[in-house]
Amino acid sequence: MTKRKKPLILITNDDGFRAKGINELIQGLRGLGELVVLAPDGPRSGMASAITSLVPINYKLIRQEEDLRVYSCTGTPVDCVKLAINVLLDRLPDLLVSGINHGGNMAICVHYSGTMGATAEGCVFGVPSIGVSLLDHREDADFSECCRLGRVVAEKVLAEGLPRGTYLNLNLPTDVPVKGIKVCHQAEGRWVNEFKEGENGVGEKVYWLTGNFRNDDKLADNDVEWLDKGYASLVPCKIDVTDYGYLEHLGSWDLG
Amino acid sequence: MTKRKKPLILITNDDGFRAKGINELIQGLRGLGELVVLAPDGPRSGMASAITSLVPINYKLIRQEEDLRVYSCTGTPVDCVKLAINVLLDRLPDLLVSGINHGGNMAICVHYSGTMGATAEGCVFGVPSIGVSLLDHREDADFSECCRLGRVVAEKVLAEGLPRGTYLNLNLPTDVPVKGIKVCHQAEGRWVNEFKEGENGVGEKVYWLTGNFRNDDKLADNDVEWLDKGYASLVPCKIDVTDYGYLEHLGSWDLG
Repeated sequence: MTKRKKPLILITNDDGFRAKGINELIQGLRGLGELVVLAPDGPRSGMASAITSLVPINYKLIRQEEDLRVYSCTGTPVDCVKLAINVLLDRLPDLLVSGINHGGNMAICVHYSGTMGATAEGCVFGVPSIGVSLLDHREDADFSECCRLGRVVAEKVLAEGLPRGTYLNLNLPTDVPVKGIKVCHQAEGRWVNEFKEGENGVGEKVYWLTGNFRNDDKLADNDVEWLDKGYASLVPCKIDVTDYGYLEHLGSWDLG
Repeated sequence: MTKRKKPLILITNDDGFRAKGINELIQGLRGLGELVVLAPDGPRSGMASAITSLVPINYKLIRQEEDLRVYSCTGTPVDCVKLAINVLLDRLPDLLVSGINHGGNMAICVHYSGTMGATAEGCVFGVPSIGVSLLDHREDADFSECCRLGRVVAEKVLAEGLPRGTYLNLNLPTDVPVKGIKVCHQAEGRWVNEFKEGENGVGEKVYWLTGNFRNDDKLADNDVEWLDKGYASLVPCKIDVTDYGYLEHLGSWDLG
């Protein structure tokens, strides 16, 4: 009988390989399988699913231990996933975990987040993929609950798999201990008052991104609501963004 | 009786304000309303829904004519939309048109495209939004059919509106004349063989993004299929990426 291979787990993020969040995640997942980390060489927050095509990218080994290799990459979070799967790894990972992000990726943030871009990209390759984020931007945030619940979800996904084209978005509030995990939908809403005006060195106006999130969701069971109540939110997300409910009506339009 | 205001139409892209595609689009939409263009100051292809938060951004007026103002912006396509609506414009646009992109944004490309990131962002603000792309990357591509069909769709959207949270992804093949517009879903599939190995100036390996799209969709009425047959594809897309079909099953998982 041949020994069954350990699960291969690809880890990435958008805060860079030096961030506390990804290093806590590595520790939290130790023992679950062979861990390969390929993460940006510096901050790539808000990079969404951006890809690098005008310049080449590369990667290098940072450290190696038993069942753990850590690489840094000059590209975006999505580049990291593409490079790992196309070039670095000799087989498809059994699981991708992206994070732990310093800052929440609930609601509309799923679209802006590099952490979630990388998660979606794992899913594109057919790898069961989970993004994990904490609603705390601080460098020294406390990721202990994220590690605990991230591991619970990771173990479950390794055992159960995920449907083709579906990935998971796990967010944790700063409340400790977290009251539990609530499976729910992405809250409707957007950022408001998004810019702070400033002035550059030669006296020209410049605009800094800032703002507050406004929850416009009228339905129960949205992620923002559960996070506000001290629960972790777990949203299953789809790669296919087609609005199937509107296809028929749009098809009835006379477009010449 | 007060004179009804002309429709306000916000135009952006990811190829930059100098690209042929956006300038053809401007000409194609002239007469439909007051056109305000706020587009990146250079190429931002593959920027998805990326946002700029670590440095400030700014914009400047490039040219002004009757019912047309053109601004360039140092940010990403999504930054352009946010800046236009938060800072530049005194009212919400009646329509956003993003493009015409030099290169197709069908299938999974909807996730990587800055043109489609900007389109989604318009939708987040409640602005009926359309992304228009041509399956031709060349600087001097022929955008005449895109302008014709883009205007048809734009006029229809101005008249009918779009559901809250839904935006449109219009792609055109290079075949002229286009056989018609097919309303359809986003093809399932992904890019394969994505990197070409090279060497930098000091002899280190580098990786250039390249690859071919592989259509894995087994169902009829997907965008790649219709484009292959010489039709334009029109896909309604949703901001809410929740996989509602999987919520109940995921909710049944024992997560402690």
